[in-house]
Amino acid sequence: MRTSHFVMADTGWPGCAKSLKGVILDLCGVLYDSGEGDGVAIPGSIEAVKKLKESDLQLRFCTNETQATREKFVAKLRRLGFDISVSEVFPPAPAAIAVLKERGLRPHLLVHDGLLPEFDGVDKTNPNCVIVGDAAENFSYQNLNEAFRVLIGLEKPVLFSLGQGRYYKETDGLKLDVGVYMKALEYACDLKAEVIGKPSPTFFQSVLNDMGLQPHEVLMIGDDLLNDVGGAQHCGMKGVQVRTGKYSETRLPR
Amino acid sequence: MRTSHFVMADTGWPGCAKSLKGVILDLCGVLYDSGEGDGVAIPGSIEAVKKLKESDLQLRFCTNETQATREKFVAKLRRLGFDISVSEVFPPAPAAIAVLKERGLRPHLLVHDGLLPEFDGVDKTNPNCVIVGDAAENFSYQNLNEAFRVLIGLEKPVLFSLGQGRYYKETDGLKLDVGVYMKALEYACDLKAEVIGKPSPTFFQSVLNDMGLQPHEVLMIGDDLLNDVGGAQHCGMKGVQVRTGKYSETRLPR
Repeated sequence: MRTSHFVMADTGWPGCAKSLKGVILDLCGVLYDSGEGDGVAIPGSIEAVKKLKESDLQLRFCTNETQATREKFVAKLRRLGFDISVSEVFPPAPAAIAVLKERGLRPHLLVHDGLLPEFDGVDKTNPNCVIVGDAAENFSYQNLNEAFRVLIGLEKPVLFSLGQGRYYKETDGLKLDVGVYMKALEYACDLKAEVIGKPSPTFFQSVLNDMGLQPHEVLMIGDDLLNDVGGAQHCGMKGVQVRTGKYSETRLPR
Repeated sequence: MRTSHFVMADTGWPGCAKSLKGVILDLCGVLYDSGEGDGVAIPGSIEAVKKLKESDLQLRFCTNETQATREKFVAKLRRLGFDISVSEVFPPAPAAIAVLKERGLRPHLLVHDGLLPEFDGVDKTNPNCVIVGDAAENFSYQNLNEAFRVLIGLEKPVLFSLGQGRYYKETDGLKLDVGVYMKALEYACDLKAEVIGKPSPTFFQSVLNDMGLQPHEVLMIGDDLLNDVGGAQHCGMKGVQVRTGKYSETRLPR
């Protein structure tokens, strides 16, 4: 597996390129590195996006970002120099909304204030499921209780979690991530959450649906072997790992 | 198993009574029923405690109460008519303190304000473990983050949980219990909490230590088949189930 990826990367597009109709790119670690302010674009990435856009391939961007709307997130990418539009970017929240529509579900939201505008057009009356995101300070006892009461009051409780991270680092220290509160609600209600976000097959499928393409027609390019490459391959897509971002930190399987 | 308990209960003390040196009684559902105000004493229970106290048997009381100090809890029992003193009552917090002393641990506390006075005499500087109780409104994002940072900063993180309940009912609705936040911290730090409280063997052992008795010399009487009878038997004690409290709700094993 290791060789094939890097042969693919080293020799340009893989042999299957002729059947390719679309490419999905990860963002952080592939196109830019996060850091102070907006972060910095990775050398060559602005041109790579430009070339892909000039090709016949459909292009989408996948990220697990859940604390900002796509609009704010894309504005940052555009400031970095990328020709990327909002409709091309797929964080977990819009994928969740697609799932809600498919299944006729009305969510109770336990998410970050910055994410709420994503759900403006979604019917949230008389909720029949709960969506938990990285709500940070919104993870109060009262708010978690409220989400719990919605779930426990449902005949068939459905919990969606926008990612399953344990914690992340900010300038003022480590912060608990959404996965921790997902586990709390899972235990309280004796259920299993449906994770939306990489590497969930549901998440990738929502992007494929948007492209109108079959998995074998699409290539996923990312820096994370589990969430990007593994998740894509699990869906029947080709997966390619770049050598930037968290690549250098990754222990490759032998 | 069913028959033997009730033969024991129906015919007075069991055959092993001659080797008995101590009795542990559960409180809620055995001596009193909780409800508005202090609740009500169960008929015959005040006299039963009196008789036990007049015997040669050592007597202790075990409860999973963690929102009040022993002093406040015992004051309620005395108002109900029971001749019970603070030193005889074992909720999880004092049991946890005994474990801290045994293992030279200094706790960071994530507990209810009403429980804090229990830990007044405990060294909490430079903590090397975390104790989580039913903290209710104190389960803020900030407080959970703080407990998490203590744990993740330890070379060998130790988490104690005062019980493992999922939720309970109060007059204004269902409330998340300590077990939910135990699970959250377990996932965040990839560890397994040590539960103190019934049915934990550590909990019962701390009571046995206080009595200076061996398990086979002690009888546990409760209304909960799992937490009282099962927990006691798991430690080598005899367990007897009363027919009050949650007995009637209990589905007995066949």
